[in-house]
Amino acid sequence: MSHPAEASRHHAFVDACRTAIGATYVLTDPRDTAPFTTDWRRRYNGATLAVLCPSSAQEVAALVRLAVEHRVVIVPQGGNTGLAGGATPDGSGEQAVLSLKRLNRVRDVDPHNNTITVEAGVVLADVQARAQEAGRLFPLSLAAEGSCTIGGNLATNAGGTGVLRYGNTRELCLGLEVVTAQGELWDGLRGLRKDNTGYDLRDLFIGAEGTLGIITAAVMKLHPQPAARVTALAALASPHAALDFLALAQRFAGPLLTGFELMSDFCLKLVGTHFPQMRYPFAESHAQAVLLELSDSESEEHARALFERLMEHALDEGLVEDAVVAENIAQSRAFWNLREHIPLAQAEEGLNIKHDIAVPISRIGHFIDETDAAIAQHAPGARMVTFGHLGDGNLHYNVQAPEGVDAKAFLKQYQSSINQIVYDSVHRHRGSISAEHGLGQLKIDEAMHYKQPVEVQLMRTLKAALDPLNLMNAGKVIR
Amino acid sequence: MSHPAEASRHHAFVDACRTAIGATYVLTDPRDTAPFTTDWRRRYNGATLAVLCPSSAQEVAALVRLAVEHRVVIVPQGGNTGLAGGATPDGSGEQAVLSLKRLNRVRDVDPHNNTITVEAGVVLADVQARAQEAGRLFPLSLAAEGSCTIGGNLATNAGGTGVLRYGNTRELCLGLEVVTAQGELWDGLRGLRKDNTGYDLRDLFIGAEGTLGIITAAVMKLHPQPAARVTALAALASPHAALDFLALAQRFAGPLLTGFELMSDFCLKLVGTHFPQMRYPFAESHAQAVLLELSDSESEEHARALFERLMEHALDEGLVEDAVVAENIAQSRAFWNLREHIPLAQAEEGLNIKHDIAVPISRIGHFIDETDAAIAQHAPGARMVTFGHLGDGNLHYNVQAPEGVDAKAFLKQYQSSINQIVYDSVHRHRGSISAEHGLGQLKIDEAMHYKQPVEVQLMRTLKAALDPLNLMNAGKVIR
Repeated sequence: MSHPAEASRHHAFVDACRTAIGATYVLTDPRDTAPFTTDWRRRYNGATLAVLCPSSAQEVAALVRLAVEHRVVIVPQGGNTGLAGGATPDGSGEQAVLSLKRLNRVRDVDPHNNTITVEAGVVLADVQARAQEAGRLFPLSLAAEGSCTIGGNLATNAGGTGVLRYGNTRELCLGLEVVTAQGELWDGLRGLRKDNTGYDLRDLFIGAEGTLGIITAAVMKLHPQPAARVTALAALASPHAALDFLALAQRFAGPLLTGFELMSDFCLKLVGTHFPQMRYPFAESHAQAVLLELSDSESEEHARALFERLMEHALDEGLVEDAVVAENIAQSRAFWNLREHIPLAQAEEGLNIKHDIAVPISRIGHFIDETDAAIAQHAPGARMVTFGHLGDGNLHYNVQAPEGVDAKAFLKQYQSSINQIVYDSVHRHRGSISAEHGLGQLKIDEAMHYKQPVEVQLMRTLKAALDPLNLMNAGKVIR
Repeated sequence: MSHPAEASRHHAFVDACRTAIGATYVLTDPRDTAPFTTDWRRRYNGATLAVLCPSSAQEVAALVRLAVEHRVVIVPQGGNTGLAGGATPDGSGEQAVLSLKRLNRVRDVDPHNNTITVEAGVVLADVQARAQEAGRLFPLSLAAEGSCTIGGNLATNAGGTGVLRYGNTRELCLGLEVVTAQGELWDGLRGLRKDNTGYDLRDLFIGAEGTLGIITAAVMKLHPQPAARVTALAALASPHAALDFLALAQRFAGPLLTGFELMSDFCLKLVGTHFPQMRYPFAESHAQAVLLELSDSESEEHARALFERLMEHALDEGLVEDAVVAENIAQSRAFWNLREHIPLAQAEEGLNIKHDIAVPISRIGHFIDETDAAIAQHAPGARMVTFGHLGDGNLHYNVQAPEGVDAKAFLKQYQSSINQIVYDSVHRHRGSISAEHGLGQLKIDEAMHYKQPVEVQLMRTLKAALDPLNLMNAGKVIR
């Protein structure tokens, strides 16, 4: 903000915003704006001209028109729980954060249409709760659900634990309301399962991380509530065996199979070390474990009987070395706890190099074998913490320093080269370097490097066409 | 082709195409091109400069580059079974048809990834067959499956009978290979369930009816094969009761419910009149009937037991007036036959006014009540043939001339005004005027009329950005 003409332009913009939505809702004091200018993992520290807190889509549209008039970049933000810095302004202090949190109304719940219409700032857990009140399930579920917003979930096409059966956020959305980069309001809040009347604008805005327009509301799909959810654990010799077991489980359970999570032995041992109250679930040690979940529309008994048949068959075929079916809800919960404590145990063990990758499910075994070998050669003794949504082909493929080695020093020496080994391997297997978390500002360089030039060009063409002034979350997703 | 410069330009284009893909595959003789210039329903008769029959994506790209060089419009065509004239060239004789039928290779079947990679020209029934050989289900199924191609299914985002459980073609696609309007080849053939690395190009090309680029291949999702499919029929008092019954069926059967088709009493009586061998399935007459299908991963017995429990409950609650569960595969087949003979019986009864509409599922009862009343007032005695995919909110809402009235004369007098009554009603209920069939050239005017200006503008912006010369299927979807 060095240039006086710039400063005066920014000042005029902030003033106009105050007039448009009320001075109370335009934050400029650094004590007020601080929570909005740092990301959740504290990797990015930005600065901002102002944090704008509109309360309606009409106010969002008015603010975007002011941004166009004054040429100010808008950084949309929901619960600020993103993992790629997508909602953090840059350090220039010239970008304005637009918080959607006051757009927090549930506009409609329609059980017969199996839909809920929510504004962007509604917290995910509240969407789940409102669905439950109506006797329905909103299946999107992830660690940040108590504070992330549905608008942020849509902007990043969030994944989570229900993808195997219910899909990503994209697959859960039927319609959107969007403020375009020109400050116009598009009402695409259609609650239809079928509509073939032109280009799919909805899916263009989903996953675009606010770089093409601002999602202000959405019609989301609901599902019938299952009568019971039951989990089981299976012990296996390798990720390859886990793949064969997945195919078998899908044959036995079809769409009732809602979870299939891989955990290496080292993951479970790490949990045991740092959370000794959580017991290793098998009598002996096994190379891999899988957590399965069934969501059954009949009963707990039916789900358990199905699991018993599946496990018997898998043991007979030699696919599975041992198996435990949860006997009650508490035990089901305990199995999920094991899985959910892996990242916590890993944090206790020390800093590590994280990857959120996806490959075709059939390639997972080869991907792990090859990448493990390449890392073992490059950084001998490095410990692989491999777990994730095997049923979606999505692994959290994390690398921990060798035992006794200082984690900080290890990261400093190896982070960049190990990232490259992992992403090159992902690329060879036609995978994704960001399965769930998006690009934000964290992974733009890698995305531009690995994508084909024609794909980058198509993305640039769309960005230039829809946001010709580059005011929508500039510096994210594409450059 | 009156202007000599035009004629010479067209001549040069055709010559260059012959050089590019071989003279054998460039059809210009009207006897050869005739099958490509008329649509399946014979509503549109076009003319063409040439029919181009490339055999690979590289050849498609080369032809598009020639089209750009010589400024010739390309009309992509698959099995030519579309219902909206989307694959028929205009009458100018200046557009070239590009047939994808020689791109007919199945490139890969990956059972562990539950995917099949197919070229655009593979016939839908062949995709189904290859999936079955691999022990998997490709659930897209529609009347034209013996001749329509997967490329056409993708270009029109085809629906069909499996949408309730498996989604439209869009939801069955993981990745695309596309020739852009500049003649570049984008390899987006990713078989990933999760990939958040930029804008969703895939869904932009799906449903765009070839107006933004040409789909040359796709990675499609496969599902586990169900162990059994069982159907049942229920008799009900009204569409409103059918909605309550749908919610109940979903609670009992969850994702096992794969079909929920509404048929009015008049539909079944029409079938009985024209196909007397197909018996009315209930002892007494009922206002509405619903065909239900379960796809069960356990067994036929399990599905039948589930149906019995559901029907007992529905009869107890007074939702359902009568019910029959198919006792064997032959009877399941017979129930589907009833449903599938409705359009045939209707054709026997005479010309009629067809609509392929969708509304939110919860609005179906009101939509039918209000629209029936408006039509009864406008065209007394008109007979409503209402049936369709109730579980998707998709109705074939067709209007037949009053008994004894000449159908041709009735259509001449009422087609346009009845269309308007139906589409106005659809619009009031926030529905879609083309649920499954797309816009093609048939419904552009209506789409432009009912869509908000901002949505039309967004579509135009995308079209101009991706196809600035307007050479990709010009005159379809958008104007």
